[in-house]
Amino acid sequence: MIRLTDTNLLKAQGYGTDLFSQSARNKIREACGCPSAEVHFLVGGTQTNATVIDAVLKSYQGVIAANSGHISVHEAGAIEFGGHKVLTLPQKLGKITATDIQTLLSDYRNDANHDHTVMPGMVYLSHPTEYGTLYTREELRLISKVCRKNGIPLYLDGARLAYALACPENDITLQDLAELCDVFYIGGTKCGALFGEAVVIPRKNFIPHFFTIMKQHGALLAKGRLLGIQFDTLFTNDLYLHIGKPAIVTAEQIRCALMGHGYQPYFESPTNQVFVVLENTRMTELAEKVEFSFWEKYDDTHTVVRFATSWATNEADVEELLKILAE
Amino acid sequence: MIRLTDTNLLKAQGYGTDLFSQSARNKIREACGCPSAEVHFLVGGTQTNATVIDAVLKSYQGVIAANSGHISVHEAGAIEFGGHKVLTLPQKLGKITATDIQTLLSDYRNDANHDHTVMPGMVYLSHPTEYGTLYTREELRLISKVCRKNGIPLYLDGARLAYALACPENDITLQDLAELCDVFYIGGTKCGALFGEAVVIPRKNFIPHFFTIMKQHGALLAKGRLLGIQFDTLFTNDLYLHIGKPAIVTAEQIRCALMGHGYQPYFESPTNQVFVVLENTRMTELAEKVEFSFWEKYDDTHTVVRFATSWATNEADVEELLKILAE
Amino acid sequence: MIRLTDTNLLKAQGYGTDLFSQSARNKIREACGCPSAEVHFLVGGTQTNATVIDAVLKSYQGVIAANSGHISVHEAGAIEFGGHKVLTLPQKLGKITATDIQTLLSDYRNDANHDHTVMPGMVYLSHPTEYGTLYTREELRLISKVCRKNGIPLYLDGARLAYALACPENDITLQDLAELCDVFYIGGTKCGALFGEAVVIPRKNFIPHFFTIMKQHGALLAKGRLLGIQFDTLFTNDLYLHIGKPAIVTAEQIRCALMGHGYQPYFESPTNQVFVVLENTRMTELAEKVEFSFWEKYDDTHTVVRFATSWATNEADVEELLKILAE
Amino acid sequence: MIRLTDTNLLKAQGYGTDLFSQSARNKIREACGCPSAEVHFLVGGTQTNATVIDAVLKSYQGVIAANSGHISVHEAGAIEFGGHKVLTLPQKLGKITATDIQTLLSDYRNDANHDHTVMPGMVYLSHPTEYGTLYTREELRLISKVCRKNGIPLYLDGARLAYALACPENDITLQDLAELCDVFYIGGTKCGALFGEAVVIPRKNFIPHFFTIMKQHGALLAKGRLLGIQFDTLFTNDLYLHIGKPAIVTAEQIRCALMGHGYQPYFESPTNQVFVVLENTRMTELAEKVEFSFWEKYDDTHTVVRFATSWATNEADVEELLKILAE
Repeated sequence: MIRLTDTNLLKAQGYGTDLFSQSARNKIREACGCPSAEVHFLVGGTQTNATVIDAVLKSYQGVIAANSGHISVHEAGAIEFGGHKVLTLPQKLGKITATDIQTLLSDYRNDANHDHTVMPGMVYLSHPTEYGTLYTREELRLISKVCRKNGIPLYLDGARLAYALACPENDITLQDLAELCDVFYIGGTKCGALFGEAVVIPRKNFIPHFFTIMKQHGALLAKGRLLGIQFDTLFTNDLYLHIGKPAIVTAEQIRCALMGHGYQPYFESPTNQVFVVLENTRMTELAEKVEFSFWEKYDDTHTVVRFATSWATNEADVEELLKILAE
Repeated sequence: MIRLTDTNLLKAQGYGTDLFSQSARNKIREACGCPSAEVHFLVGGTQTNATVIDAVLKSYQGVIAANSGHISVHEAGAIEFGGHKVLTLPQKLGKITATDIQTLLSDYRNDANHDHTVMPGMVYLSHPTEYGTLYTREELRLISKVCRKNGIPLYLDGARLAYALACPENDITLQDLAELCDVFYIGGTKCGALFGEAVVIPRKNFIPHFFTIMKQHGALLAKGRLLGIQFDTLFTNDLYLHIGKPAIVTAEQIRCALMGHGYQPYFESPTNQVFVVLENTRMTELAEKVEFSFWEKYDDTHTVVRFATSWATNEADVEELLKILAE
Repeated sequence: MIRLTDTNLLKAQGYGTDLFSQSARNKIREACGCPSAEVHFLVGGTQTNATVIDAVLKSYQGVIAANSGHISVHEAGAIEFGGHKVLTLPQKLGKITATDIQTLLSDYRNDANHDHTVMPGMVYLSHPTEYGTLYTREELRLISKVCRKNGIPLYLDGARLAYALACPENDITLQDLAELCDVFYIGGTKCGALFGEAVVIPRKNFIPHFFTIMKQHGALLAKGRLLGIQFDTLFTNDLYLHIGKPAIVTAEQIRCALMGHGYQPYFESPTNQVFVVLENTRMTELAEKVEFSFWEKYDDTHTVVRFATSWATNEADVEELLKILAE
Repeated sequence: MIRLTDTNLLKAQGYGTDLFSQSARNKIREACGCPSAEVHFLVGGTQTNATVIDAVLKSYQGVIAANSGHISVHEAGAIEFGGHKVLTLPQKLGKITATDIQTLLSDYRNDANHDHTVMPGMVYLSHPTEYGTLYTREELRLISKVCRKNGIPLYLDGARLAYALACPENDITLQDLAELCDVFYIGGTKCGALFGEAVVIPRKNFIPHFFTIMKQHGALLAKGRLLGIQFDTLFTNDLYLHIGKPAIVTAEQIRCALMGHGYQPYFESPTNQVFVVLENTRMTELAEKVEFSFWEKYDDTHTVVRFATSWATNEADVEELLKILAE
């Protein structure tokens, strides 16, 4: 944290773009074990998804995603604004499978009228998912294999990647991502930065003219060094690998406390999001004192809510919550 | 039929646009009981859907449709090309309900984060549906009521409308459509015309500058009289109300014959489409002699196929099929 | 003409798509001396331009065209609707030059900030131009050479191509187009067909998935045979090479007659369009008796107008005009 | 400057969005004398132009702009990506006139075929212009009058607005902008902020659902307070009105020095940009020691270059330049 504050100060003093951004790029390349990777810095997640997806797809192609994927639900139609359809697959705890992807691709190929439908042109995953769940390395490897066999690029949205990397259950490393994905982004906005996402393209020139596409999408920050400084800091001494740790620890404490007070978990989610079923009147009481988000209706008298911790959540916050739950 | 041939001949002799198209417009207005309606002629169905939907929606809005709707599945992403999301609802025999539409609209309104999602901006129905099924007048009235209560335009795709109008089970008239919808189109291409669809906008100027939008979408036919002549013929002596009749009769004959030979209907569909479950080996045999379309897998050894009749299907065609089935 | 009428009759009797369209494709391939060319049939010119240009360009590219080009001026923003900028060059009598194209491309390449601008991605010509003028074979060869040297596809809009091919001044053949262009279209709508344009892609698979792109653009005619029949007729016995002849002859007669009556030609145009300067009061008189189009203001008391003949203009029409001029 | 540094520090300590952004909004409303104005914060200029223009225009409309306008030239086709044409007018020193706008609108209206062309839907100005020149209050008033008479919104791009406000020649105030424009933006990125532009919509709800449109364009910054803090600072004690002063002063010093050394000014520009004609060999010499931008070729042996100062340019920078010029 302190390092962020320090560099925040530096910003106003006008250090040059190149040094910071180049340094950040090199550290990210090293962390990914991929010295020739292209690294681009964008400002926010929706912008990054819209820009990458539009850059990868041909005009007549769509992107395969979980029906719960952020691009399907929460981006105000930014993908469709770029002219592309989101081809949704059913999810299980936010995840889709290599088998379902292969079936969709085979069905497309076998459909005698497929020229009348949207051609699947890439696969979109998020890790952690919108449900806070994690793909295993093996699941990712299988998806990657299906993608390569079918000549379809694989894109991974790492908006909350730090929370995966800090989670004991996670067995996917940055190197794995660089090996198994064609594009992915390392989230800054939700992971300790003021803003910013780092797009990594392991094979150089996989997306020609990405810079111009960024400009066209209004995704180019005039003072690019602001992004460089932040990612340079996040990738110094492996900070990014650890910055999610407190969120994981406090989420686990909340999870235990909720169970201890007899609340029913909605499903297991190992990262910084805790999903729990609350009786509606209890939910209303709690809502006055604690911040959580509505997730979905459970039944007529119960609701599923989500508690999300972040790199900035601290012990005091958790104790406060525990005290409220104990009331 | 003869009248179509006659006017075909007329085409090449160059009769003026205005007379034919104006006459066709007036006859359509009369048939719809709506003297002030705007009527525009376009060439094909995908083009018509893309143009109307893009004309009605604001850039940040999407269109509500059955997940089986033609615009969801079979138009190669033409709606998304215009920048809009298709917001799908589950269908039952190709139909969606007023209740489900109201729930989607209420959920949108109640979602505290709805500014991050696509705003529902219109409702798309098809009648007959892609499954050959029909809305009842009452179902359509309820959907229309929900739409008006929520200030959302209702658009009805009548690509196969002639087959509804000729069907005894149908209780929706052209006048009902003009009263209950904000825009609808009367299909020509699949209903006896060489090509052409007539968009009807009951309230004049509901879509300002529709002509320019047609041009921008490349949907303006230079020799517009070709469309005018055909619709003028189709709306002379109520031809359009009857042209679907033979298709309905022959579909019923096929339906009976299939049942008679012990084939299982997949679901009831009163118009010109017959859905039946075939054993796979039988399907392969039949495919060599008869034309039908693959619909979906039923189980490992059976398949659902679709037989579709048209205004041009005749007794001989049906007898031929019956003979083949009897083999 | 008679053959068109005959085949018009055939249409309604439902001959199959494949035979007519395949035959038309083969005749066009032969006429172009390019047996492996892809040939696609679309309905109208704006649609064809929008579809081809969107299919060829990458999302961040624009199309180079004369500032008088049809796509710049008269297509209601159809190109921009597809997301592309028209990069205009100044024209001389509707034509642009190899030198100006090379300068634009070099300027782009030498601009240190070109990543912030639209990348030129193709060249659009029309032949005859919107001014009725013609490129020479040598001019086209030089433009083609610049395009190939710079790796930029060349697209030629032949909406009125028949009038070039029938014009003595023209030295560009269909074979030349197939050799020098990457895509071009042979106009039907303005050249004797009821509607229809034939897109020719000399190198097979130069535009992958063009069929799906057509569908996405709503440019696919359900009854494709209607297009096939017309082009099959137009390319039987070289009809297309001669169909423009009467228009050229009558345009020349009008041109002479106008000069004979002392009217000033605005510029030389060898094809079916005649541009002449009229005194405003004379223009008003004539407008009541003859059809012509306003082209532009000449000065406060004179106007440039355009007379356009077509394959259907006959001697009687011309004599009528001559009589009126003589009054 | 110091205040910016201070608040930079604050950022990392996580002060709430609402307080800062609301405070900034209120200060901007007050500075504009428009208490009911809507104020939205976006990240960068291209993004702001693309989002505002797409939000204001109907799908079939284009935006009127100088052919030198930033949106015509330097935004990588971001406007066309949104589906809109830029309708260019010739500029004089970067400015367009009320008369030319009226002529374009009248020509459109009088064109019998205007349904085939792009409808002008808004006017885009930049102040200062891309040439560093200024509109006078009277010129702006006349343009506004033409826009209102024709029912066309007026949008002003104030990317460099601080340099206008600090310039003695300028007679347009923020209140004037709020009175005469329908939308305008107050530039932060080029005027002392790290990033950020403040869109002001004087008449509330003039653009419905602007928030969702921002999200769809990927223009919503998750940590919006970062923008609020900066604009709150810029609008405290009228800082924004003065922050451009040093740039104006140093630009004037450079201007005088250049003239003093016999360099020819290319044209008069009162703000922070100085345009001068350099002999090419001299330009090459200078380029090794000073930073300036290539503007355009003057003739074969001379080039026009641009020197731009900013709020951060100081006396030492200028003296350094003067010394180099004196060599």
